Amino acid sequence: MTTSFVRPEPPYYAVIITTAPSEDLDGYAAMSKRMAELGEAQPGYLGRESMTDADGRDLVVIYYTDAESITSWKAHPEHLEAQRLGRDRWYSSYTVEVARVERAYAWQPPLD
Amino acid sequence: MTTSFVRPEPPYYAVIITTAPSEDLDGYAAMSKRMAELGEAQPGYLGRESMTDADGRDLVVIYYTDAESITSWKAHPEHLEAQRLGRDRWYSSYTVEVARVERAYAWQPPLD
Repeated sequence: MTTSFVRPEPPYYAVIITTAPSEDLDGYAAMSKRMAELGEAQPGYLGRESMTDADGRDLVVIYYTDAESITSWKAHPEHLEAQRLGRDRWYSSYTVEVARVERAYAWQPPLD
Repeated sequence: MTTSFVRPEPPYYAVIITTAPSEDLDGYAAMSKRMAELGEAQPGYLGRESMTDADGRDLVVIYYTDAESITSWKAHPEHLEAQRLGRDRWYSSYTVEVARVERAYAWQPPLD
C-alpha cells in the first residue's frame, strides 16, 4: 500500500528501507505496527510510502525534515530493541539508506 | 518484486518514484519494459528496487552514481516521449524525488 502525502519543498530527508523476512515472523506484525506509530510521533516525521510483495519483502521510504530527526529515532530505546529483534529473528536481510532529497516533482492532471 | 543489488559506498544518488495508474494502460507495459532496459544502459546506473501493489501503484527507487547521470537520462529523447505519454495517458498522478544517499547500512546474518 502506498500512503501518499504532500511533500514540503526540498531539501528534506528520506530513509529508504528494504527488508526480506526470515521464516520466524512471530511477533513481527505487532512490532511493525508499534514502530510505525512511534516513528510517526517523532519530531521531524513527514510521511511514508511503503509496499510489501507476495514474498513478504518490504520496500519502505520514510520521510523526515532533517538528518538529526533520523539519528534521534534510530537511537530511541524501544526502536533499538526492535532493530535487535529484527536482526535476531524477523529479517533474513535488510538495507537502510539515509538520503537528502534535493529535488522533487509531483504531477497530477490539470482540472478541466 | 524487489531486485536487490550491492550498493557502493555513499555518496550516490537515488530517484524515488511513486505512480498511480490511470484507467488507460494501453501500451504501458511495453513502454515500462523499454524504459527499464534503456535506463539500465545509461551511464551511472547502479540498480533498482521496485514494487507494485494490487491497485497497480508503483514504488520504485532507481540508483545512480551521480546527479548528472540522472539529469542526462531525464532529458533522453525517448525518455521524454515516455514521460509525455505517462502524463497524457497512463498515470493519474506521480511523484519523483532526486536524493543524495549520504549513509547506507546493509545487514545479513553472520555465517555460522
